[in-house]
Amino acid sequence: MQTIPFLRKSGDAPFTDRGIKKAGQLLRPWSGEEVSGVAIAGAPLSKTSISHSGAHLTPQTIRTMMQSFSTYSIEEETDMWDHNITDFGDIGMHVTDLFESQARIYSVLRDIQEQHKDAFVITLGGDHSVSAGAIKAFQETRGRAGIIQFDAHFDLRNTEDGGPSNGTPFRQLIEQGVIDGSQLVQLGIRDFSNGKLYHDYAKEQGVTVYTMGDIKREGLLRLLQKSVDQLKQTTENIYISLDMDVLDQAYAPGCPAIGPGGLDSDSLIEGIQWLAGQQSVKGMDIVEIDPTLDFRNMTSRLAAYLIMQFTLFYSKRKGGNHHE
Amino acid sequence: MQTIPFLRKSGDAPFTDRGIKKAGQLLRPWSGEEVSGVAIAGAPLSKTSISHSGAHLTPQTIRTMMQSFSTYSIEEETDMWDHNITDFGDIGMHVTDLFESQARIYSVLRDIQEQHKDAFVITLGGDHSVSAGAIKAFQETRGRAGIIQFDAHFDLRNTEDGGPSNGTPFRQLIEQGVIDGSQLVQLGIRDFSNGKLYHDYAKEQGVTVYTMGDIKREGLLRLLQKSVDQLKQTTENIYISLDMDVLDQAYAPGCPAIGPGGLDSDSLIEGIQWLAGQQSVKGMDIVEIDPTLDFRNMTSRLAAYLIMQFTLFYSKRKGGNHHE
Amino acid sequence: MQTIPFLRKSGDAPFTDRGIKKAGQLLRPWSGEEVSGVAIAGAPLSKTSISHSGAHLTPQTIRTMMQSFSTYSIEEETDMWDHNITDFGDIGMHVTDLFESQARIYSVLRDIQEQHKDAFVITLGGDHSVSAGAIKAFQETRGRAGIIQFDAHFDLRNTEDGGPSNGTPFRQLIEQGVIDGSQLVQLGIRDFSNGKLYHDYAKEQGVTVYTMGDIKREGLLRLLQKSVDQLKQTTENIYISLDMDVLDQAYAPGCPAIGPGGLDSDSLIEGIQWLAGQQSVKGMDIVEIDPTLDFRNMTSRLAAYLIMQFTLFYSKRKGGNHHE
Amino acid sequence: MQTIPFLRKSGDAPFTDRGIKKAGQLLRPWSGEEVSGVAIAGAPLSKTSISHSGAHLTPQTIRTMMQSFSTYSIEEETDMWDHNITDFGDIGMHVTDLFESQARIYSVLRDIQEQHKDAFVITLGGDHSVSAGAIKAFQETRGRAGIIQFDAHFDLRNTEDGGPSNGTPFRQLIEQGVIDGSQLVQLGIRDFSNGKLYHDYAKEQGVTVYTMGDIKREGLLRLLQKSVDQLKQTTENIYISLDMDVLDQAYAPGCPAIGPGGLDSDSLIEGIQWLAGQQSVKGMDIVEIDPTLDFRNMTSRLAAYLIMQFTLFYSKRKGGNHHE
Amino acid sequence: MQTIPFLRKSGDAPFTDRGIKKAGQLLRPWSGEEVSGVAIAGAPLSKTSISHSGAHLTPQTIRTMMQSFSTYSIEEETDMWDHNITDFGDIGMHVTDLFESQARIYSVLRDIQEQHKDAFVITLGGDHSVSAGAIKAFQETRGRAGIIQFDAHFDLRNTEDGGPSNGTPFRQLIEQGVIDGSQLVQLGIRDFSNGKLYHDYAKEQGVTVYTMGDIKREGLLRLLQKSVDQLKQTTENIYISLDMDVLDQAYAPGCPAIGPGGLDSDSLIEGIQWLAGQQSVKGMDIVEIDPTLDFRNMTSRLAAYLIMQFTLFYSKRKGGNHHE
Amino acid sequence: MQTIPFLRKSGDAPFTDRGIKKAGQLLRPWSGEEVSGVAIAGAPLSKTSISHSGAHLTPQTIRTMMQSFSTYSIEEETDMWDHNITDFGDIGMHVTDLFESQARIYSVLRDIQEQHKDAFVITLGGDHSVSAGAIKAFQETRGRAGIIQFDAHFDLRNTEDGGPSNGTPFRQLIEQGVIDGSQLVQLGIRDFSNGKLYHDYAKEQGVTVYTMGDIKREGLLRLLQKSVDQLKQTTENIYISLDMDVLDQAYAPGCPAIGPGGLDSDSLIEGIQWLAGQQSVKGMDIVEIDPTLDFRNMTSRLAAYLIMQFTLFYSKRKGGNHHE
Repeated sequence: MQTIPFLRKSGDAPFTDRGIKKAGQLLRPWSGEEVSGVAIAGAPLSKTSISHSGAHLTPQTIRTMMQSFSTYSIEEETDMWDHNITDFGDIGMHVTDLFESQARIYSVLRDIQEQHKDAFVITLGGDHSVSAGAIKAFQETRGRAGIIQFDAHFDLRNTEDGGPSNGTPFRQLIEQGVIDGSQLVQLGIRDFSNGKLYHDYAKEQGVTVYTMGDIKREGLLRLLQKSVDQLKQTTENIYISLDMDVLDQAYAPGCPAIGPGGLDSDSLIEGIQWLAGQQSVKGMDIVEIDPTLDFRNMTSRLAAYLIMQFTLFYSKRKGGNHHE
Repeated sequence: MQTIPFLRKSGDAPFTDRGIKKAGQLLRPWSGEEVSGVAIAGAPLSKTSISHSGAHLTPQTIRTMMQSFSTYSIEEETDMWDHNITDFGDIGMHVTDLFESQARIYSVLRDIQEQHKDAFVITLGGDHSVSAGAIKAFQETRGRAGIIQFDAHFDLRNTEDGGPSNGTPFRQLIEQGVIDGSQLVQLGIRDFSNGKLYHDYAKEQGVTVYTMGDIKREGLLRLLQKSVDQLKQTTENIYISLDMDVLDQAYAPGCPAIGPGGLDSDSLIEGIQWLAGQQSVKGMDIVEIDPTLDFRNMTSRLAAYLIMQFTLFYSKRKGGNHHE
Repeated sequence: MQTIPFLRKSGDAPFTDRGIKKAGQLLRPWSGEEVSGVAIAGAPLSKTSISHSGAHLTPQTIRTMMQSFSTYSIEEETDMWDHNITDFGDIGMHVTDLFESQARIYSVLRDIQEQHKDAFVITLGGDHSVSAGAIKAFQETRGRAGIIQFDAHFDLRNTEDGGPSNGTPFRQLIEQGVIDGSQLVQLGIRDFSNGKLYHDYAKEQGVTVYTMGDIKREGLLRLLQKSVDQLKQTTENIYISLDMDVLDQAYAPGCPAIGPGGLDSDSLIEGIQWLAGQQSVKGMDIVEIDPTLDFRNMTSRLAAYLIMQFTLFYSKRKGGNHHE
Repeated sequence: MQTIPFLRKSGDAPFTDRGIKKAGQLLRPWSGEEVSGVAIAGAPLSKTSISHSGAHLTPQTIRTMMQSFSTYSIEEETDMWDHNITDFGDIGMHVTDLFESQARIYSVLRDIQEQHKDAFVITLGGDHSVSAGAIKAFQETRGRAGIIQFDAHFDLRNTEDGGPSNGTPFRQLIEQGVIDGSQLVQLGIRDFSNGKLYHDYAKEQGVTVYTMGDIKREGLLRLLQKSVDQLKQTTENIYISLDMDVLDQAYAPGCPAIGPGGLDSDSLIEGIQWLAGQQSVKGMDIVEIDPTLDFRNMTSRLAAYLIMQFTLFYSKRKGGNHHE
Repeated sequence: MQTIPFLRKSGDAPFTDRGIKKAGQLLRPWSGEEVSGVAIAGAPLSKTSISHSGAHLTPQTIRTMMQSFSTYSIEEETDMWDHNITDFGDIGMHVTDLFESQARIYSVLRDIQEQHKDAFVITLGGDHSVSAGAIKAFQETRGRAGIIQFDAHFDLRNTEDGGPSNGTPFRQLIEQGVIDGSQLVQLGIRDFSNGKLYHDYAKEQGVTVYTMGDIKREGLLRLLQKSVDQLKQTTENIYISLDMDVLDQAYAPGCPAIGPGGLDSDSLIEGIQWLAGQQSVKGMDIVEIDPTLDFRNMTSRLAAYLIMQFTLFYSKRKGGNHHE
Repeated sequence: MQTIPFLRKSGDAPFTDRGIKKAGQLLRPWSGEEVSGVAIAGAPLSKTSISHSGAHLTPQTIRTMMQSFSTYSIEEETDMWDHNITDFGDIGMHVTDLFESQARIYSVLRDIQEQHKDAFVITLGGDHSVSAGAIKAFQETRGRAGIIQFDAHFDLRNTEDGGPSNGTPFRQLIEQGVIDGSQLVQLGIRDFSNGKLYHDYAKEQGVTVYTMGDIKREGLLRLLQKSVDQLKQTTENIYISLDMDVLDQAYAPGCPAIGPGGLDSDSLIEGIQWLAGQQSVKGMDIVEIDPTLDFRNMTSRLAAYLIMQFTLFYSKRKGGNHHE
């Protein structure tokens, strides 16, 4: 076999520095063996969005943005180089049968978490409709779920007007009896972004709702502590559903539903770091980024950074990464 | 009731010139009465596209672009001011059930053409998947259809891999027995834009295929004459399915599937003018423009211009606009 | 009259959810009857800007952005559904005679406020030149005006160099004797954004000037309280002139004159909420957004949000919405 | 005085090649002395446009684009290095008094052409409204004018609805008695881009109108020959008014009023080359490019190229550059 | 090893149709074995450009654009599925030592062509500076080279002012004695795009120069026939150096040096098809596309299409693909 | 010599207001005489960047952005009109020899500072590679340098993998013995933006590193005070190297390496104001802005604003602007 100096495979990094390892290199395609630790799986579905959305492009964009970061945390003086992140790839979507696509998201995520008891799966949306199947699969494989939803919106719309869309995932879960409202805490709900009918519904169902006003008054970390304490009493494990539009438009310009009055990115980073350190947190999704609308992939960059921070603090959990 | 000088309703044109009537003003919302002449109906469906597409935004964009044109043809010295175009509005799409959306396109277009025998309906896509229902509705209400399809692609893909998408409309029509291949003439099919399997299928089914090479060698007008002559022998009326990507990327920068080697816009305009003058032509659709990708709505502008040219030459048909 | 299922009028919302009412739906075109409560009127004039500006497009853009918000405030647990906002439409501008355009702004706003004693009119610019006529009309119909101007700039330039432009409205008002300087409080004036000559002028005329430094040291709410207290002593009613460029470029990327060192959007929202609750506040304008320069209409979105927050807190005023 | 190697003045070209002279370097700021030969003067007025236009930015953009070209014509094997183009700079516009701005255009262009008998002035718009003053000044200083107008539009709108705008220059000239219709030849007038009323007006006034259809049937060069022959009979000198929107949108993406069905750039180049060689051609303007809408300044690039081609063929006129 | 239905590897195509093979799939990464037939190698160097250029991004962009095309030519009724194109990957560039980068281009291309006698290597630039090393390597491995250069520019600048840049490749080859001028034919040289000094140099060196005027008068195919006939007399094999800026800006909006007056894309396609069929043509490069400036990768799309057309007609050469 | 009213030189401001002086007008091209006070010099080098960068365009962009600001600080009630800023122009870069370009940066900045003992030179990059030469020149002319580096990255990469790039300036300075690590304080170093190897290197070399976490915990001003106190003990004068990517992506969208978790702009402004007031601070550079990626030149605007704030507080230093 010949070799030719200086020739590198198409797609390889144009430049490598011996002293810098890229976060993107932590992503190891799933080999078919059982894995543990943090893993990602793409759920590239956004045809289910009420408004036109390119959120199906996000899993691949986040992977690319991970190449913008290194593996070293100077704050924690920790190199994550040994903490591979399994990349399960993307769930194949049907071109025209969106219910089939949603069914596949559920079944693939169930299979993955069934086969990999010690894997912490981060599902990369896609729009928020993917969380319905993702949470169902999480609960079936990880036990009764407490859900912490970062979001400007309830996502509790009725499913009759438009079917199971990105506005309905938590309504579907409740109506199908997968969860009851007490399993759900919503953080960051915002003025003039929701209908009163759905606030009424949230109250009826016993959903805990913290508004942006609550966060500004009490602080995100304090509310997260309260949420985890509360959820631990009735559920086994906690699932984070992170709709990036919880952020203010200045910090997440690439969400389909941007607006003022939201969270800043530093607070969100701090919140995710804290949650990553909680033993009870066992699953997560990141949804609602549309790379076709973003500026310089700022929002996907932030998502990639959050994955790295999560993986860092996950690796430092008391008792290690292992499933209790 | 008060009036206040200089105050105009929100949405009204900021400036009106007594000597210029806008083509957009020809669009009259359907009043519920029976209408004749040229009419438009939006089929804003593009979730059925294989690739991400914003083609559902096109009906509204074309309406806006009609405001860029006046009603007067200097070449024909004809003012179209008296030739209203009925605007039936848009067919409401389901958020998540795409088969339902396609069924609605068929049923609405059938209802419209059943109730309005003398209307010439131009369906504004949306992606090319809308033509399946549109042509079925056309044939049921206007008699056995001869179809002249302008397209870089066959759109004869199998429906098993991804369901009824923007790659399959003519396959669906043939497989469902709505049409047989002899009813279909394809013009502008291009190199490296199609699969051999589907060329084989076209041949097996008796579809007439004219490539871009054929158009360059023989001329579009000559091929259109041949196509109309041939179709008239076995069909009652002719339907034009205009996929704008038959045009070269230099002339239609806003099609989802752009590429070199296509038709120029002057030839297409001339072809549409000629077809508009043919008594046998009784229906039409314009599909596959994505305003989110276009440059200054050039492609929708051209579509609006084609609608005006069509309406002009339609109005000059021997024997008038009336149904034979 | 026929009806056809699933057909909707061109321009209607593609999807409606029974549980979500859009803020945009609160806008009711003026019917010619006398109205009360919050109302908007567009003053689409930006040819008067010193630099090229598309701010005349903003009234229509803000209307569109109101469709991005719902009617429900979760923080106040209040649905604004019953609080219609009258939309008086836009003031027709002359194509080439800008003085005529400015005269029309004054006369239309005077007519509106004369005929509608209980209306709270929010004038949507346009550039800041529209405030000269707007404030004159306000004072003539609502009594001696105290003005709270949010702005990075004095807008006290001389009118000889370029006529009555977006840099001169408050100078015009003072020079024409419409107001004296003591009626004017300016908040958010910024470094390297103004001429010393005009600071001297402000001082000579007794204008109260609070810089960004003042806001950072004392807090916006405290300065607003001081401003209202002071203005109440010598004026009858307060008018808010909100130049969006008081905001930092990170929060208002669509202002013609962006820059660093400005206000954040949360503070501005809080300030507008507080002012909305003050009985003495009786008029307002929002100016200097150029949608052609903005990113995803972020700045117009914020303006729409401010209108909703204003309307919410206006509706909660002690004693109701009614004119004292 | 110190010198420091490698230091170059801010604004100087970053790289110079001894073998390439830039067309932009031919532009010599007017020194106050009498000049002859080709000269340019900017008329940066576009507030007079009916639609929002950034055409006032074009004079400076064309100057910049001239830096993209060299001075050497390989087709003619001629280096234009010795053919300086005098740059008279830009006419200062009033911020708010547009009639004053138009008056300045007339007076400056009259002064220039009065003082410089042998100068061939190319006025760089700005929108088409600048041609009214430019042609009046031309005729007063160069004798009775024959006008060859390249345009998709008549620009014969009434001046009552919006004043003297970019839609009215030739109407103004006729109504003010500056010219009569027989002095005007319009080339490239397009379908659905004009009102019938104004075609009627053109006919009444004896304006010669060649449509795009005429150009396609007869050829631009033949029509130009006919136009020059005709105009020579009753006028002393010919003025070219080049509205770039005579071009198809594929070739001039930066005109405010783009559309299909127009001229291609090669034909226009050939036409301008031919006109440049005619002794009777003595003045010119280039209008209606909006750099804020263009793609990579393609349209201004073409304008700069046309100026170079014009200057080249002007320099080759039988009898030289000198005034007869 | 587990498998999970519907899960696909990150980076795999989201949708595959059994009847469509993508041209991009013809690209097979070089395995280290000897290969024959068409092959590509990326030379991602553009820091050597006189103006800021992102042309180093083009090899990867062209590979992506090949995914936009299928493998089937309907004009030739030929499926290219069995005609793999070897992808040698990209030549690694030094970050700061540009001469080292250029040396690597030469050495890698020499190694490739030495080891693969029957390979037809298409070098993907990068800017035109890469052709110097590419042609040297071609000649050393394929015999005395006749060069057909498509270009708006001579690229014969002196190397003293800025070193070996994208303006100098053919000057370097002549000055270094690699070729003499008689080995070089330049096609498409354009007005006001070159210096007279370099035209003089071309003449002195015996370079054959055909301008755009020559192409318009005589036709590209006729000039190509003349060029091949002439070059065959003194050289062994022909190399095509295709600078995409030979095209008019309307057809190649993504070249760094765009302008009017150039070739149309259909003519270039036809020319490349014809050359592909010539036994004597044995090497090629495609240079000067900057994806950061392009519109929807139109120019890279065209390059990918040209590669497919070249490969098609190469496969049909009399005597097959094999080296004589 | 003739004069013509209203005619202004090409390039002159379209509008001047007698009461507003532009910050850009403070820039006076160097006349060849000895100067003192704040001065700027452009180092337009970005080919040395590891990733594609247009940072060489920044010096000219910052100059343009200075036209967006006036000369008057309202916070300090100081008009800077009398504080000219000498503009030394730009250092000419070689097209292909990047080491030569770097050598020129060093030699020009050394010459400038040698000849102008009382000048405070702000070097405008360009990428961060320019700081190596800039700091060497500073130290040779201003004495042993203490360096305060604002940066998300160490910029201490090895120079073997890619030569002296924008990732290596401080490594070069240490390895070449120009400085030792104790002379360097780094502020704002961020998670997942650096390699552990280079943190180790920083520690070994005695570099002081403050992370973003440190800044959030202790406050920037406090850390700056500590840094200056520490550096003063062992160095003569302080040099600020300001890599704009120390800022969060929300505040500096135009840096090549954007990301979340960085500094806000208000803090940076405050820090630069404080440093400007320190007698020991004697030199500065501003690097890593790519205008081709920025949004509305926000990042260059901020840089221009920082230059004005620096000049303001520099002018207020105890003891005046003069060199001790």
